[in-house]
Amino acid sequence: MTEAHFYAVIPAGGSGTRLWPMSRAGRPKFLLDLAGAGRSLLQSTWQRLAPLAEADSVYVVSGAAHADPIRSQLPNLPAGRLLIEPAPRDSAPAIGLAAVLINRRDPDAVMGSFAADHLVRDEAAFATAVRSAIGATADGSLVTIGLTPTGPETGFGYIRCGALLGAGPARRAEEFKEKPSAEAARRYVDGGGYLWNASMFLWRAAAFLEELRLQQPELAAGLDRIADAWDSSDRGQTLRDVWALLPRTNVDQGVMEDAARRGRVAIVPADLGWDDVGDWDTVARVGSGDSDGVTRIGDGDVVALDTTGTLVASTSGRLVATVGVDDLVVVDTPDAVLVCRRDHAQRVKAMVDELKAGGREELV
Amino acid sequence: MTEAHFYAVIPAGGSGTRLWPMSRAGRPKFLLDLAGAGRSLLQSTWQRLAPLAEADSVYVVSGAAHADPIRSQLPNLPAGRLLIEPAPRDSAPAIGLAAVLINRRDPDAVMGSFAADHLVRDEAAFATAVRSAIGATADGSLVTIGLTPTGPETGFGYIRCGALLGAGPARRAEEFKEKPSAEAARRYVDGGGYLWNASMFLWRAAAFLEELRLQQPELAAGLDRIADAWDSSDRGQTLRDVWALLPRTNVDQGVMEDAARRGRVAIVPADLGWDDVGDWDTVARVGSGDSDGVTRIGDGDVVALDTTGTLVASTSGRLVATVGVDDLVVVDTPDAVLVCRRDHAQRVKAMVDELKAGGREELV
Repeated sequence: MTEAHFYAVIPAGGSGTRLWPMSRAGRPKFLLDLAGAGRSLLQSTWQRLAPLAEADSVYVVSGAAHADPIRSQLPNLPAGRLLIEPAPRDSAPAIGLAAVLINRRDPDAVMGSFAADHLVRDEAAFATAVRSAIGATADGSLVTIGLTPTGPETGFGYIRCGALLGAGPARRAEEFKEKPSAEAARRYVDGGGYLWNASMFLWRAAAFLEELRLQQPELAAGLDRIADAWDSSDRGQTLRDVWALLPRTNVDQGVMEDAARRGRVAIVPADLGWDDVGDWDTVARVGSGDSDGVTRIGDGDVVALDTTGTLVASTSGRLVATVGVDDLVVVDTPDAVLVCRRDHAQRVKAMVDELKAGGREELV
Repeated sequence: MTEAHFYAVIPAGGSGTRLWPMSRAGRPKFLLDLAGAGRSLLQSTWQRLAPLAEADSVYVVSGAAHADPIRSQLPNLPAGRLLIEPAPRDSAPAIGLAAVLINRRDPDAVMGSFAADHLVRDEAAFATAVRSAIGATADGSLVTIGLTPTGPETGFGYIRCGALLGAGPARRAEEFKEKPSAEAARRYVDGGGYLWNASMFLWRAAAFLEELRLQQPELAAGLDRIADAWDSSDRGQTLRDVWALLPRTNVDQGVMEDAARRGRVAIVPADLGWDDVGDWDTVARVGSGDSDGVTRIGDGDVVALDTTGTLVASTSGRLVATVGVDDLVVVDTPDAVLVCRRDHAQRVKAMVDELKAGGREELV
C-alpha cells in the first residue's frame, strides 16, 4: 500500500564521467542499464518507489536535454511531474523546487528524495526503511537513510549516529563527515556507529522549506517566486530568470550538515544492497559474472577464451572477443571503445578530460 | 639494375587466422599493412622485387577471391601476370604453375619465389642476397635464402648448412628440419650452423621442373597439360579439370627436403630483418611503438593513458581509448573487436575455431 501524503522526488542529474564511453553528456548514467537488470537505473528507481508512492506523487527533476529519454523510459510519469531545470545548480535548488511545489499542493506532504542513478538490490528492505523514515519525519526532523558500510570506502560521505529517538530504528544523526581519508574511513568502519550517506533524504516538505529559509534564504525566496508563477503564463520566464541567480549548493552541505549540528536530523539505518555504481570497477563487482569469466552489460555479443574477472559492456552490436585477459573492462560503443584495467577505473575521468582538452567534445 | 632472365613469383595465399579479426578469409594477411609501412605486405613484397625484376617478369599466384584486391593494390602488375588457382593446393602446384609457364616463355629463366606476406626490413640486404642466390643457381642447384635466427623459435623450420660452394656466400644445404622442439631449437641456435627456412627459393626454372618430374611426376605431368592449353581457348577448362586432381603438397617437404639429401640444394645466408609477422604479438614486436606506449596499425584514432607495450590495430574509424593496460593487443574492426594479452596471441586461432564451430562464418 502506498503511503498517504507521501511524495517521491528523483533528482536525475550527473553525467557519470567515469562510466565513459557508455555514459555521455547526452546519455548520462541514470539512463543506462548498468546492473544488467533489463532496465535503466532510473527505471529501477521508479519501480522501487511504486509500492510507496502513487505515480502522480512522483516527481523527476532533470535538465532539458534529458526530458525526451526520461519520458520515453518512464511512460507512466504523469505530465507535469517532470520538472525541468533551466541549468544545473546542484541538488538543493533541484530538490527545493520539488519541495516548494509539493508543499503548495499538499501542506501535509512528506517527501523523499532518491537519486536516479543508484543501485538498490533489496527492494523490500528499501520499502521498510522508507516507511520507518516517513514515521520519523512526524516531529519535523529531516531524516536520512544511512547505509551499513561494506568497507572503508573513501569515495562516500559518512554520518555519525547517536541515540535512538523512539520505539523505531531512527537515531539522532550527530555529524556528517565528507569523503574521509583512508585512515579515518577505516576508523569509522572498524569502530562502528558510522553509516554511509547516500543522500536519501525524507522530511515534511514544510520542515525542509523552514530549514531552507533559515540556512539558504536567497534560495528559499527564489523558489517561492518560482512557485508563485508556476500556474501562470509567466512560469517559463520566471523560472529562467530566477534560476539563473540561485546559489549553487547541495542539500548535504548546504542544509543537512548544519541541521545535524542543531539536532534536527534523524537517521534510519538500513542494509539495502546499495551501490552508487560510480565507475566500471564497481559495475564489474556488482555484476553477476558468467561462467566464462565475463560480466556482460548491454546486448552485445561476447566470446571469451581464458578470461577472468572481466566486464564487457557493449552497445554496438559488434562481436567483442577476449583472449587471455584478466580484470579488464571493455566498453564497446558505436563511436568509441575503451579498454581499461579494473584497478585503473577511476582514471577514466582523466581520459574524458584528455578528450575534452583535445577538442573532442563529440565523444564525451 | 634488374637481372636478365630473372623472374619473381609471389605466392599470395594463407589466411593469417592468428591475425583475426583484421585478417579474414576474404581479406587475408598479405593484403594488410601490418608493419605500419603505409602499404600492405603484398605491396612491400612487390616494391622489394622492383630493383631485381621487370614488372612484366613478376608473377602473383593467388585464389580467385583475392584477384580484385590484388589488382587494386598492384596496379602495375601486367595483365596475365596474375595466375589464379582454381582451388588452394598448397605451394608446390602454385609455384609449379608459375615455373612451367616461365620456363616455356624463357628456357634460360631463373626464378625466385617470395611469400607475399612476410616482412623484410633490410631491402638492400635482400637485393644482395637475391643476386648471390641467382649466381648460385647457375650449376642447376635449387637455392634457398637462409635467415640468421634471432632466437630459438619453434614456429619456423631450420636448415643445416654445410661447406662453402665457391667464392660466393652460398653453402651446401645439408638438411631441412621442420618446426623443432624447444630443446632442439635451442641447440640449433646455440651451436650455430643452422639458419631459418623462410621458403625463399631460387632456381633455374628448368632445374626445378626436372626435380618435380623426379619427385612429383603426377604434379609435373599435370602442370605440363595446363601449360599446353594455356594459350588456347581450353585454358580455363583444362586448368580447372587438371587442378582438381593435383596432389596437395608444398615445395619444402615435397621437393626441397629430398633434393637436399641428394646434394642439390644450396643456401645463401642472409640477415634481412625478416619476420613472418604471423601473430599479433609479433606485429607488436616489429612495430615502432609510440611514446605513449602504443604501437598503432591502421588509420585508427587512439588515445592512451598509463599504457605500455600495447598494440592497437584499428580499421573502424572509431576512437580506441586505453587506460592502465600493459602488453595487450586491441584490434578494432567494423564488426568485431579483439582484446588479447600478447602472450596469448597464439590462442587467437582458437577463437576463430570457436566462431566457426558456433556457425559464425560471417565473422571469420
